[in-house]
Amino acid sequence: MDFDLLSELITPARTKIVLLILDGLGGLPREPGGKTELETARTPNLDALAARSSLGLTVPVGPGITPGSGPGHLAIFGYDPIEYEIGRGALEALGVDFELGPKDVAARGNFCTVDAKGILTDRRAGRLPTQESRKLAELLRTIKMDGVEFFVEPVKEHRFAFVMRGESLGDALSETDPLKVGVADLPVRALKRDSEKAAQYVNRFVAEARKLLADQSPANMILLRGFAKLPVMPTYPELFGLRAAAIALGGMYRGVARLVGMEVLPVDGDALADEFAALEKYWHDFDFFYLHVKKTDTCGENGDFDGKVRAIEEVDALLPRLLALAPDVVIVGGDHSSPAVLKAHSWHPVPTLLYSKVVREDGIAEFGERACARGSLGVLPAKYILPLALANAGRIAKYGA
Amino acid sequence: MDFDLLSELITPARTKIVLLILDGLGGLPREPGGKTELETARTPNLDALAARSSLGLTVPVGPGITPGSGPGHLAIFGYDPIEYEIGRGALEALGVDFELGPKDVAARGNFCTVDAKGILTDRRAGRLPTQESRKLAELLRTIKMDGVEFFVEPVKEHRFAFVMRGESLGDALSETDPLKVGVADLPVRALKRDSEKAAQYVNRFVAEARKLLADQSPANMILLRGFAKLPVMPTYPELFGLRAAAIALGGMYRGVARLVGMEVLPVDGDALADEFAALEKYWHDFDFFYLHVKKTDTCGENGDFDGKVRAIEEVDALLPRLLALAPDVVIVGGDHSSPAVLKAHSWHPVPTLLYSKVVREDGIAEFGERACARGSLGVLPAKYILPLALANAGRIAKYGA
Repeated sequence: MDFDLLSELITPARTKIVLLILDGLGGLPREPGGKTELETARTPNLDALAARSSLGLTVPVGPGITPGSGPGHLAIFGYDPIEYEIGRGALEALGVDFELGPKDVAARGNFCTVDAKGILTDRRAGRLPTQESRKLAELLRTIKMDGVEFFVEPVKEHRFAFVMRGESLGDALSETDPLKVGVADLPVRALKRDSEKAAQYVNRFVAEARKLLADQSPANMILLRGFAKLPVMPTYPELFGLRAAAIALGGMYRGVARLVGMEVLPVDGDALADEFAALEKYWHDFDFFYLHVKKTDTCGENGDFDGKVRAIEEVDALLPRLLALAPDVVIVGGDHSSPAVLKAHSWHPVPTLLYSKVVREDGIAEFGERACARGSLGVLPAKYILPLALANAGRIAKYGA
Repeated sequence: MDFDLLSELITPARTKIVLLILDGLGGLPREPGGKTELETARTPNLDALAARSSLGLTVPVGPGITPGSGPGHLAIFGYDPIEYEIGRGALEALGVDFELGPKDVAARGNFCTVDAKGILTDRRAGRLPTQESRKLAELLRTIKMDGVEFFVEPVKEHRFAFVMRGESLGDALSETDPLKVGVADLPVRALKRDSEKAAQYVNRFVAEARKLLADQSPANMILLRGFAKLPVMPTYPELFGLRAAAIALGGMYRGVARLVGMEVLPVDGDALADEFAALEKYWHDFDFFYLHVKKTDTCGENGDFDGKVRAIEEVDALLPRLLALAPDVVIVGGDHSSPAVLKAHSWHPVPTLLYSKVVREDGIAEFGERACARGSLGVLPAKYILPLALANAGRIAKYGA
């Protein structure tokens, strides 16, 4: 099944869908025979919702594939994450809320240290403090060339996002980062004909940067990698006739949401409750809301089992505010698993519930990995959650007579 | 998801994977409401391993499709069995441990009986005893022609494998076997341009065989069918960087394993315990071991329910020797089902367990068809077991940022 069919069958409705994504939701027990983070968490509200829902486990990319946040989100947004790939550079720029345009070529940048002969001695310039990094980014912004515009956006410590804007710039570019010390940085090569102009600009930029930073040791040079333009994506309004909104505190999530045509809503504050307040505030203005919870993933990646449990409990406590809005469809799931015991993203399928007034209830009054394994959604590609949500929202007409 | 992505994400590790295949594992109850062979078997070791595993049911080719051993094995090895097809002739040659090369065209051969006018009267020459068949194969080996080399390998009773080796030989060839008596055998026709040379050689070989066998009634003629070259397959070392080994007593399983780049290990003896001894002996030399158990399928095909139960119990008794090696990942499954009540291969999904230290345990302490139907792997294409095994072995890097 593809978007052509789905898009053709879309029918208007006055229903509202909420996609509540707990980043890195899926987990593993602390020890064999134990409970996962989600199974450990006291979640009376999620459990009650589960009892009125269909449950299942979503596979973001494919069996055994651990997704990054980009592909994980595209999948749960309904897109095939292999067909639509967001390059690393583009994600870095989205991550600092840079409004990346369709012609922009973005890259991940590092400040680094080279010796007098230009040989790399530290690829991260001693993990330069963010404060210092900001100043040097300002310096790089003074580099100007005819026919192209450069943007340098500090990220964190030694990292920055590099963006080049102009006509006919391709992104098939080799990287300047040799990924090891003891050698010089590499010139950028065009890997395709259409990227030759871009390669020349990047090489000139790097040459200018080398001069400008010469006295700024340890951050006396830069490395660029992961050159990428944004993929061209069909959007929610086009595909599904949805007025869709995103509520997320991380730039990257806002960026991916913007890419699929969601309007990014302002959040007044940086607490989870502030995100729920934004949902309430804009409730009447949109058909579809994506609400992103970051802390579950952060705790998972930090190996903080108890913190992840608490983060889930915090969501559970706020859930009644969401339900009080009487949404027609609610999905609670994740973009991937991040088990605290692995301190990383993982390939494990993600517990997911789908609630609506017309869903077939599984009658399982528990939201957890093993409860979801018994659910009627089965183990399914994450990209199928969106069509199910649309159907439950009365937004897909009959196929055939 | 295809091999391109998987192969791109492969990352080295020092982990070991064991794929334990009980041929024809899946079964059916003797009578409605009863237990299958696997459910009947006393399997304390498999049950204990199941408790620490993810369970599921694998579909080798597709819903409702009964796989032969070739496609069944390719699927559980991770290959799409429709994309990569091993022709019957090639399987027959592999089955007698013939080292089939990429240019060889193989076929299934039969000794048969014709009357004075060349009309077929018995397609199997009265199921000629293997002993007789061997002598006649020797006779056929005396046929020589310039530009091509012929091999005739006795199989069992009236059957033999025919192989033709030379340059530019195609395998798009019609069969000489009319599949009925009362008519003459058919000349071989090239079904594609590139197989015309091969067709000429086969027809000349058959004409020579007709002369040579004229006095050998009842086996006074041959039939050839299932002409096939080996498919060109990407191999385990190329795709996954795995040093893979196969432990199997049947030639066909060794052949298919060799085709995907496994090294076939010598087994000292022909008992199941000897296969486990080979596993122990070569444990330090490989990353991946495929161990094949034949008896489950033989009993299934013979309608021997109790024999299949005992064969499963024999595997269970040997399992501790495998676990004592402390493998990182263990898969126990099958290439297809062979229910004793059907006396044949069948389409039924195959019970499968996947154990690792980082698997999400389903907490189901039983290895059986219905237990596996409740497992978190769900009902999944068999080809996805390998990527899951690689992920659990820490051999797949994150996709996207």
